[in-house]
Amino acid sequence: MNFKISKNVLYNSLQLVSKAISNNSPLPALSGIKIDVEKNSITLTGSDAEISIKKVLTNEEIENLNLIIIEEGSIVIESRYLLEIVRKIDSSEINFEIVDGSLIKITGKSVEYKINGIRSSEYPLIDFNKPNTTFKINSLILQKVINQTTFATSDKEIRQVLTGVNFNLKDKNLECVATDSFRLAKKTIKVDSDLNFNITIPSKSLNELSKAIEKDEDIEISINNKLAQFYINNTLIQTRLIEGAYPETNRLIPTVFKTEITLDSREMVSAIDRAIFIKNEGVSIIKLSINKENMIISSKSQEVGSLQEIIVPENIKGDNIDISFSGNYVLDAIRYLNANKIKINFSGEMKPFIIENLDDSSILQLVLPVRTYN
Amino acid sequence: MNFKISKNVLYNSLQLVSKAISNNSPLPALSGIKIDVEKNSITLTGSDAEISIKKVLTNEEIENLNLIIIEEGSIVIESRYLLEIVRKIDSSEINFEIVDGSLIKITGKSVEYKINGIRSSEYPLIDFNKPNTTFKINSLILQKVINQTTFATSDKEIRQVLTGVNFNLKDKNLECVATDSFRLAKKTIKVDSDLNFNITIPSKSLNELSKAIEKDEDIEISINNKLAQFYINNTLIQTRLIEGAYPETNRLIPTVFKTEITLDSREMVSAIDRAIFIKNEGVSIIKLSINKENMIISSKSQEVGSLQEIIVPENIKGDNIDISFSGNYVLDAIRYLNANKIKINFSGEMKPFIIENLDDSSILQLVLPVRTYN
Repeated sequence: MNFKISKNVLYNSLQLVSKAISNNSPLPALSGIKIDVEKNSITLTGSDAEISIKKVLTNEEIENLNLIIIEEGSIVIESRYLLEIVRKIDSSEINFEIVDGSLIKITGKSVEYKINGIRSSEYPLIDFNKPNTTFKINSLILQKVINQTTFATSDKEIRQVLTGVNFNLKDKNLECVATDSFRLAKKTIKVDSDLNFNITIPSKSLNELSKAIEKDEDIEISINNKLAQFYINNTLIQTRLIEGAYPETNRLIPTVFKTEITLDSREMVSAIDRAIFIKNEGVSIIKLSINKENMIISSKSQEVGSLQEIIVPENIKGDNIDISFSGNYVLDAIRYLNANKIKINFSGEMKPFIIENLDDSSILQLVLPVRTYN
Repeated sequence: MNFKISKNVLYNSLQLVSKAISNNSPLPALSGIKIDVEKNSITLTGSDAEISIKKVLTNEEIENLNLIIIEEGSIVIESRYLLEIVRKIDSSEINFEIVDGSLIKITGKSVEYKINGIRSSEYPLIDFNKPNTTFKINSLILQKVINQTTFATSDKEIRQVLTGVNFNLKDKNLECVATDSFRLAKKTIKVDSDLNFNITIPSKSLNELSKAIEKDEDIEISINNKLAQFYINNTLIQTRLIEGAYPETNRLIPTVFKTEITLDSREMVSAIDRAIFIKNEGVSIIKLSINKENMIISSKSQEVGSLQEIIVPENIKGDNIDISFSGNYVLDAIRYLNANKIKINFSGEMKPFIIENLDDSSILQLVLPVRTYN
């Protein structure tokens, strides 16, 4: 293996594929980036077995790549070292050459590294074959789906299916749902495809996918019952799916409401934010008392003290209600709505309530209350 | 106690005095900020017993303070809560009022907190009496002294005196020395005072002092054999001194050299920075091989691999030499020199070497080599 390549293009590509690499991989080779040099192309691969990212570099498809291939071959290099070397090297072109077994020489202008690589035969075989089921989604819409849902997934492995976002396509309607069983985020978008499917994608994979999206374009997505593939330019991001049935969540979402308030999103965020440091056993519980005229936000802790704030919403409809909830959950829910005005719909003191963006009906946030003590 | 005050001025002052507060203070009251309200002034105090910061606020001396004192009094409030409340409150003026024992009411526009304070009788008595020995130093010069020395102090408590910077004033020459016994930083400045003293100030106190310096002015410093006081505007920063004799370091600094090189500071920093990830048991050892024509920087580790880089210094004088050292120590030393061109003076393979800023003779950095293996 022997090739020359542009430092900047290589560095950006290495950064992208390294996103798939986990710091505590059980297999040593997976802490590295695999470099495959063929006749006209270089392929970089990073993986943690759950998510794999593959990027193909050719002079035809990538500007200023300045790729010169002298000899084909393949090697795996520890990703931390490789990124460090390429970032700091003293020239705009870098030369990589295998000099002895898995010892690789990396040369800049005045500097020469000899780094212990890992033979590519020790790298697991990753099947990148394309499944037959394929559809397209606009990149920015997909990014928004990811950003507005993944925060609500569970970070506990007990019910693994809740650590992912569920994508349910039926009649061209794609419902994207995330829940940790205390709160739920649901985004609904139109997809121009006659397919029907119900898959759950790990939250971590979706977040890496979101970071890889750079411009407004259509992304091709291929799926089977084991994995999903996302094709963005010359990059392929492949993730395994989470097995197991995702819970039926639509029946949890109330449709009849007793009390509804409409108010400025920032006003509600600021008020909760002012109360959030008042904690009981590490949790910030906030109480809302809504009457005909206004809404009182309060919070109390034996240790810290108490807070009370009066807010006059733009509109109050329905019965008086007292309801308590986790301040952080409602803060998250409102922040990820990206709303100017929000509407909060209550069904009862111990029933889940819904927070909506008045200007965007595609997204809904649901939070479970906690018992109110006085 | 009952007063109104400008939110912004109060917040900035609280931030300043809170710098003295340690997260794990043995005395609960010391995790708070003490507020003393007198007839025409408010005094804020923060302390961890080693360093204490006191700030006096009066309408006469501080613009836009808008202080209105309704009732005198005194209270201690947990600093985390107080900073959080003042930062986020919904008005530009805040009202503080003791309502019941140590319960304090803090009021903004629509929000009202009732926070459990701590009686000021539980706060330790801090003696802020001014010692008689007093001199002045320009604030920006003092800041530079601090920034160029404290990094070289020891972070180990075994030899406590090395955790501070030693200030030795003799014949109007102030020598400021920091060392952890592997490297040493020495800054020499002129002080217009006939005093002679030799004191050691904790590095942590100096770093907080440096952050409190905002403009070019003369700082009054008062010392006795227990403590030092720094008067900056309406702020008094007081620190205890470290007891015990500081080692005599001047005899450690070589004055006769066998090899001298002069080169661009950034070139040397970049070269070491490229090698620093190559570690043996967590330490980056770098070897310099200097001959008549050039200098070879190299580093090697069984696990990672090796690096070699050729640098041609502007000037090489004296004998050929091979010398090895901790990459991080030399990187620190050069960075804190703030130099364009540096001169490195070697006395021998196992003797300390000196790094100087060619444009600033007031600062000197010394590093001990390690044994060179081939």
